Amino acid sequence: MPQGQVSVTPADGLTTRQRRNRPLLVVHTGVMKGKSTAAFGMALRGWNQGWSIGVFQFVKSAKWKVGEEEAFRALGRVHDETGEGGPVEWHKMGSGWSWSRKQGSETDHAEDAREGWAEIRRRLRDARHGLYVLDEFTYPLKWGWIDVDEVVAELTDRPGHQHVIITGRDAPQALVDAADLVMETTKVKHPMDAGQKGQRGIEW
Amino acid sequence: MPQGQVSVTPADGLTTRQRRNRPLLVVHTGVMKGKSTAAFGMALRGWNQGWSIGVFQFVKSAKWKVGEEEAFRALGRVHDETGEGGPVEWHKMGSGWSWSRKQGSETDHAEDAREGWAEIRRRLRDARHGLYVLDEFTYPLKWGWIDVDEVVAELTDRPGHQHVIITGRDAPQALVDAADLVMETTKVKHPMDAGQKGQRGIEW
Repeated sequence: MPQGQVSVTPADGLTTRQRRNRPLLVVHTGVMKGKSTAAFGMALRGWNQGWSIGVFQFVKSAKWKVGEEEAFRALGRVHDETGEGGPVEWHKMGSGWSWSRKQGSETDHAEDAREGWAEIRRRLRDARHGLYVLDEFTYPLKWGWIDVDEVVAELTDRPGHQHVIITGRDAPQALVDAADLVMETTKVKHPMDAGQKGQRGIEW
Repeated sequence: MPQGQVSVTPADGLTTRQRRNRPLLVVHTGVMKGKSTAAFGMALRGWNQGWSIGVFQFVKSAKWKVGEEEAFRALGRVHDETGEGGPVEWHKMGSGWSWSRKQGSETDHAEDAREGWAEIRRRLRDARHGLYVLDEFTYPLKWGWIDVDEVVAELTDRPGHQHVIITGRDAPQALVDAADLVMETTKVKHPMDAGQKGQRGIEW
C-alpha cells in the first residue's frame, strides 16, 4: 500500500480534512524500553507545530530524570524567549506533583497517582494542551489505583483538539480499544542480553 | 529479571565500567512508522549528555522536513548560545548534501547516497560525533548502492566512543548481526486502517 493511502474510507460522515485533523489517542505499550522515548520523539513534532506540550510522568522517584526532560525544558525556554515551537510543561509524580501544595505521600503512591489524574482531567476539560504525554500511566490503571472506565470515558469525550499519548506496559484492553493508534516495540536483540550494562545517554 | 540486571556476564575481559561505556550500534527496523521518531527520542538523551549529534537523512526530497529537524536545530542553537546540551548538525541528502559543492543529482540518488556514506566514514574515522543518526540508511544498503560489508567493517572498527543509530525497513542481516541493539516497532492498531489520514504534528 503506498504511503499515505488509506485502506478503507470509513462511513463516519467526516470529510478528509476533518479526518486528517482528528485528535489522536495513542498508546505505546509492550515489554521493551523505548516506549517513552518514542512518545517524546512524537512530542518533538507537536512542539514544532506550536502545540502546548504537557508531560505527566507517573514515576515514583522525584530523582529519576531522563535526558528528554532537560531537552524539553530547553525547548520550552526557546518558545518562551523566541516564540518558536510550543510551550512545555513537565510534571512528575515523584514525591508530590509540582502544582500540589502537599509534599507528596512517599508512602501512598495510589493517592499521588489519583491526584495526577484529577489534574489531567481538569486540563482535558479546559482543553489546556495540544499534546499530553501520560508517561507510565498504564501502571496506576493496571494496579487499580485509577478507574480505567472513567479514564476511557474522559478521553473519549475530551473537547477540542487534544492529542494524548499514553505509555507503559500492559495497557488495559479498554484503553487499547479506545485508542486510535497502538504501538508495540519488540526487542530483536538487546545489549543487556550480552552483559551490557545500562548507560548514560542511552538508558536515561 | 530486575531492571538493570544482566542475564549473562560475557567473558570479554572487560570491567563493568568498560562495558557500561561501550559505544552502541543500534538498528531500528520493521515495517512500521516510528523508527525515526524513536531514534530522535534517543538522540534527545545524547544531546542532554553534551554529545555532538550528527543526523544524516538519506531521504530523496530536499523539501521533506520532519518536526524533529526544527526541534533539534533549536536545541543546537541552545547549545551554541548557552553551552547546554551538545552541538547538533542535521544533513539531508535531498537534492545534494549541505557540505557538497554539487547541486546534487536529482537523477542519481545512488551517487548522492554514496557521497553521504563517504562523509560519514570520514567523520567516524575522525570520531567527530558522539551520536550519529543515519536515518533511512537501510535503503541504499538494500538497493546495493552502498556495500553492506564495507559499512559493517567500518562501524565495527570505529574508534573512540561513537554511538550510531540506523533506521529503515529491511535492515540487512549483516547489519543486524553487527548491531548491539535491534528494535522493531509493531503495529497493534493504526488510524490509517480506519481511514485516518496522515496529519501535521503526528506524521511529520
